[in-house]
Amino acid sequence: MTSYPPPMDSPAGDLSRRGLLRGVGLLAAGVAAGSVITPHATSSTPSADPRGTVPFFGVNQAGIATPPPDHFILAAFDVTTSDASLLRSMLNDWTDAAHAMSLGRTIGETNNPYRPPVDSGEADGLGPANLTFTIGYGPSLFDERFGLASQRPLSLQELPPFVGDNLNPLESDGDVVMQICSDDPQVNFHAAHTLARLGEGVVSVRYMHIGFGRTSAVTADQETTRNLLGFKDGTNNLQVNREANFDHHVWVANDQPSWMAHGSYLVSRKIRVNLELWSANSLDTQEAIIGRAKKSGAPLSGTLEHDTPDLKAQDARRNYVIPSDAHIRVAAPSQNGGRVILRRGFGFVDGIDQTTGQIACGLHFVCFQRDPQDQFVSIQQNLAVNDALMRYMSHEASVVVACPGGLHVGQRWGNQLFA
Amino acid sequence: MTSYPPPMDSPAGDLSRRGLLRGVGLLAAGVAAGSVITPHATSSTPSADPRGTVPFFGVNQAGIATPPPDHFILAAFDVTTSDASLLRSMLNDWTDAAHAMSLGRTIGETNNPYRPPVDSGEADGLGPANLTFTIGYGPSLFDERFGLASQRPLSLQELPPFVGDNLNPLESDGDVVMQICSDDPQVNFHAAHTLARLGEGVVSVRYMHIGFGRTSAVTADQETTRNLLGFKDGTNNLQVNREANFDHHVWVANDQPSWMAHGSYLVSRKIRVNLELWSANSLDTQEAIIGRAKKSGAPLSGTLEHDTPDLKAQDARRNYVIPSDAHIRVAAPSQNGGRVILRRGFGFVDGIDQTTGQIACGLHFVCFQRDPQDQFVSIQQNLAVNDALMRYMSHEASVVVACPGGLHVGQRWGNQLFA
Repeated sequence: MTSYPPPMDSPAGDLSRRGLLRGVGLLAAGVAAGSVITPHATSSTPSADPRGTVPFFGVNQAGIATPPPDHFILAAFDVTTSDASLLRSMLNDWTDAAHAMSLGRTIGETNNPYRPPVDSGEADGLGPANLTFTIGYGPSLFDERFGLASQRPLSLQELPPFVGDNLNPLESDGDVVMQICSDDPQVNFHAAHTLARLGEGVVSVRYMHIGFGRTSAVTADQETTRNLLGFKDGTNNLQVNREANFDHHVWVANDQPSWMAHGSYLVSRKIRVNLELWSANSLDTQEAIIGRAKKSGAPLSGTLEHDTPDLKAQDARRNYVIPSDAHIRVAAPSQNGGRVILRRGFGFVDGIDQTTGQIACGLHFVCFQRDPQDQFVSIQQNLAVNDALMRYMSHEASVVVACPGGLHVGQRWGNQLFA
Repeated sequence: MTSYPPPMDSPAGDLSRRGLLRGVGLLAAGVAAGSVITPHATSSTPSADPRGTVPFFGVNQAGIATPPPDHFILAAFDVTTSDASLLRSMLNDWTDAAHAMSLGRTIGETNNPYRPPVDSGEADGLGPANLTFTIGYGPSLFDERFGLASQRPLSLQELPPFVGDNLNPLESDGDVVMQICSDDPQVNFHAAHTLARLGEGVVSVRYMHIGFGRTSAVTADQETTRNLLGFKDGTNNLQVNREANFDHHVWVANDQPSWMAHGSYLVSRKIRVNLELWSANSLDTQEAIIGRAKKSGAPLSGTLEHDTPDLKAQDARRNYVIPSDAHIRVAAPSQNGGRVILRRGFGFVDGIDQTTGQIACGLHFVCFQRDPQDQFVSIQQNLAVNDALMRYMSHEASVVVACPGGLHVGQRWGNQLFA
C-alpha cells in the first residue's frame, strides 16, 4: 500500500499526483475506483479551465486530497515579530485573502489613488484557475516565542538526516509554509506575492520553490505521464487507490491539538536529479534500476504497463527479474510495512548549475501522511540505503509541517491556531 | 510605431507577445488586422492543444512571427571544440532533432538495451505542444576559431552598456543561442535537454533561462493580460499591427551573409523588477509612471483601454496628463524615430534572492528586429535615461544573436552556416 520516492511509482502503485488525476479521469468514465477520493475531499476535475475553483472551506484543507493542477509554489515564511497577536492577525488576513483569491477575486481596496493598491493586480482577470492554499506550521513555530509550545502536534518533529542528504538550510524548514497550487503560474505567483505583502512586518519569505507538472489536458484515454527520468509515473495508482484509505493513512487520527483534527503532515523534499549521469546508462541499466520497461512502463516481470509486478519472479540464472535494488521493489508496500503516503510531486528546473555546468533540475516531492515519523521517515530510511535510483539523486531542501484541519465557513487560520 | 520596455505596452502599441495573441484572436473574429501576420509567418492559433504544431521549415524561422505559446526557454551554448566540422555536424544533428521534436516525435534509437537511449524520453507522449526552435549565433562565434569571421552578419555587434545595467556575464552572451517555446514546460525542458545531450563534446550549456506567460486559453473576448507589475500589457497592439511591416522592421534587408536572408536579430534581456519598491507606490504614482489607469488600462488622457493616448493633453495646471517621464510617452514611436521592434516577453520567477530577501522575478524580454544597433540600442538608450519605470528594473542578463533565415525542407543549420 505504500511507496515513496518522488519520480517513480511503486509496484503496487500509490496516490501520486498523476495517479489522482488518472483516478479522477477513470471515475468520470464510470469505473468504480473505491476510495480514491474520500468524502472529505472535493472531486473537482482538474482542468486548465481558468474559471475552475476548488472549495476553500471544508473538513480538510484543499490541496491535499484535491486533484493537483499544473503549477506549484512552496513558499516558506519565518516569523520576524515576537508579538503573537500580530501573527494571529496576519494569519486571519491571509485567510480572507486566500479565500478571495481561490475565487479569482482581487483583495482589498484598489481604487484609492493616494495609497498603494492592496491587490498588486497581476492576476486580475486570470480567473481562479483551481487555486488552492494549504497551510502548515513547522516545529520552530512551537518554541517559546508565541506561547504555542503546548500546542505542538504530537508527530511534528524535525526529520532526521538521511543518507544522501545535501540540504541547504536556507532553502529548508520555516515557521509557516504554504503550498500553492493552480493551473496558471501567474495566479500562483500572485498568491505567493500577496501573502508576502500582507505579511510585511510579521513574516519574511524564507524561500519560494517553483514546480511544474504536465500542462496538457488530462483525459481518461491519455497515456500515463513521464517524469524527468523519462519513465512513466503513476502506472498502478488506480489499483492501490481502490484500497487506499485516507482516514487511515493521510488524516491524523487524534486531535491533539484540537486544530489538527482532520489535518495532516506535509513533508517536502527538493530532490536534484543528476540527469547527465542517469542518461549515460544503457537502456537495460535504466530499466533494471527502475524495475520497469522504459517505453511501455511494464514491470520487468510482465509485458503490459498495468501488469502487477511479480517481486518473486526469477530468471534462468535464478536472479530476480526485478532486481533486489530496483526502485519498484524497494518502494513496494511489502518492503515498507504496509505504509502508505499521499504524494503530490512536481518537476523543477533552476537553469544551469554554474558550479557543474549541468542542468539544475529534478523533482519537487511533496507528500502527506498522518504520521511523518512512522511513514515518511521509515520509507525514506529504507530507500536512501537500498534503492539503486538514489545514486542519481541529491536531496537539496527539506521541510516538515503540521497542516491543520480545514476551516469552516468564516473561520480563520489565526483564530484556529490561537483558539 | 515603436516601443520597447518589456512589461509595458507603448502608447501606440507594439507587437508584443500578448498583442500577437490578441491580434490572432481578433483575426479569428473577423476583424481586419492588416499585416499582423506576414505571408512568411504561420497563422496557427496559439492554444494549449498538446497536438498543436508550428511548421519547422519555411522562409523564416519559427518562433519569431509565429504566435508565442505559454512557456519559454532561452538556452545558450558555448562551443568547446575548435573543430569546425564537429560544430557543423552537431548543428545538422540539432536540426534533425528539432524537426522531429516539433512534430512530437522521439529522436533516434530508443530500444537498444545495451546503449543509452538517444531520446531521454521525458516528453514521450506529451505531443508537440506548438514547440518551436529559433537558433541564433552570437558575435563570439565569428572569431578565428571556425573560419567564420568573413561570415559575420553586418549588424551583429556587441551591445553597448546601458544606464541601469547590472549584467551577470555568466548568464549573458553565448556562441549559439536557442529560443525554445511551447505550451508545455516539460516539452520545453526535453527540447533543451536533448540539444545539450546531442551537443556533448562540442558545446556546453552556458545558461538556461526559463519563462512563463499566461497559461489560460486566449480567446477574442478575453481581457488584455497583465504583467507582474499588475498593469495590462499589449492594449494597443492591434492598431499598430495594422501598420506594422515585418519586412521593414523585423526581417533583415540584405543577405550578407547569404544565410541571413529572411533572418532577423534577437536581443534578449533578463530584467529583474523590484516589486517591493513598485508595490509601495500609491496607485496614482504607479499610474503616472506607466501613463495608464491600472484597472482599466486606459491612457491617462482617455477613459477606455483602447483610447489612443494623447501625448499633448495638458491638465489645468498645464502639466502633461501623460507625464513627461511616463513609460508610454518615452516608449512612444514619436519619441524613438519611428523605430519598431517585435517583442516576445515572458515572466520569470527565480525564488527568493537570499541576499535581499525579496522575490527574484521580472520579465524575460525578447525582441526581434532587422538591425539591433539601430532599433534596440537606440530605443533602450532613450528608455534607460528617460523612462520613470526604469527605476524599478535592473537588467541582469543580455544577449544579441543573428538568427538565420528559415530552412527549406531537408536543409540543416550546419550546412546553412558553413555553406
